[in-house]
Amino acid sequence: MTLKMYDLAGADDAHRFSPYCWRVRYCCAHKGLKLATVAWRFSDKALLPAPNEGTVPVLVDDGQVVSDSWRIAQYLEAKHPDRPLFDSPQARAQALLVKFWVERTLHPFITRMFVRDAWAGLHAGDQGYFRDSREKRLGKPLEEIVREREHTRGQFAAALEPLRATLNEQSFVSGATPACADYAVFGAFMWARCVSRFDALESADPLNRWRDRMLDLYDGLGHTAVRNAAA
Amino acid sequence: MTLKMYDLAGADDAHRFSPYCWRVRYCCAHKGLKLATVAWRFSDKALLPAPNEGTVPVLVDDGQVVSDSWRIAQYLEAKHPDRPLFDSPQARAQALLVKFWVERTLHPFITRMFVRDAWAGLHAGDQGYFRDSREKRLGKPLEEIVREREHTRGQFAAALEPLRATLNEQSFVSGATPACADYAVFGAFMWARCVSRFDALESADPLNRWRDRMLDLYDGLGHTAVRNAAA
Repeated sequence: MTLKMYDLAGADDAHRFSPYCWRVRYCCAHKGLKLATVAWRFSDKALLPAPNEGTVPVLVDDGQVVSDSWRIAQYLEAKHPDRPLFDSPQARAQALLVKFWVERTLHPFITRMFVRDAWAGLHAGDQGYFRDSREKRLGKPLEEIVREREHTRGQFAAALEPLRATLNEQSFVSGATPACADYAVFGAFMWARCVSRFDALESADPLNRWRDRMLDLYDGLGHTAVRNAAA
Repeated sequence: MTLKMYDLAGADDAHRFSPYCWRVRYCCAHKGLKLATVAWRFSDKALLPAPNEGTVPVLVDDGQVVSDSWRIAQYLEAKHPDRPLFDSPQARAQALLVKFWVERTLHPFITRMFVRDAWAGLHAGDQGYFRDSREKRLGKPLEEIVREREHTRGQFAAALEPLRATLNEQSFVSGATPACADYAVFGAFMWARCVSRFDALESADPLNRWRDRMLDLYDGLGHTAVRNAAA
């Protein structure tokens, strides 16, 4: 049976950019599971199946509804144990730190670089909510935040130093082959790639090699992403 | 046979504060291995057994000489496999990211908070080298850097947010029980504890609970550390 995920979409139904939804897409591809998606928008809260937290991803599998990318990864691992996302309890525990490092340390830089482009790609019905909530959180008009993005990219590059040093020693965060922790990090880069033409990495950054490897996985899944026509 | 580690010491032979050496001490305690230490100072480069990189820890075990805390952990795991530090290849791979996160992201804050106190605890023969090299690297007199340490502690607290979120879900970075990744993080806190009375964490920080658990491990190993009498 095909799994179904409610997935954040832009003005273009095919423009899908949520870092959390990209994680789920890669976890399913890792396991060889077919995943269908339903385009969802911030203004569609009432359309999500219960239980949910008012946001995506929400996965529906065999009558079960699971929300939150981390809980979905745990669900997939339990329900579809082939091709595991974690090879041990310690690996699973440490992947949680990686996930939180991505969300608390890396995501804020992505937001600051791309929030204006992300806004431009949204459905008109989502733009008002998105601008208001983000400007309130960031304390500035989106256009002002994005004006500093070259500088933000430098800060982002510095924050990535632990990842750079790690990938100087091994091919993936998870070791010789990619797994859940890589998808958590890569979701941030897919978000950036989908919403903007401005590159989150400078061209000389050695992290480009890992990002290219990730883009090529699963028959080039990342390359198939529809990018923001409005950016 | 008892292992032997060359360990950075201050003016007081018993004052041992290197975060990298603390990691090795915890890895040995984890495995139930007896570890003897040799007090070593920056000016003693010629006294280190070969091969070495001019710095500590250097471990001597059964005629083998191994330097660098990460390589020592790998060596211990191979040579003394009981009570493993890693429970899988993925766990080992991800622990490397944790190690680099500690070194590249957390250690610079510790340095900025405590470099003056650390200097005060050093042997007179090390103080000149230490002050010169650190002031060159940091671009300011030690006394000036430390004057901002309340502010630095706030930045450090923000950088710790991924750890705080993780330890809100599980007892240790490594899961239900501590292992190598915890020792990598905790080494930074032992360094801070040993060189200064200024607390790296505010008293309300929930990370205190994890730090207390770590201090209590292995018959309270961390509590036995001799703190800096000059700070």
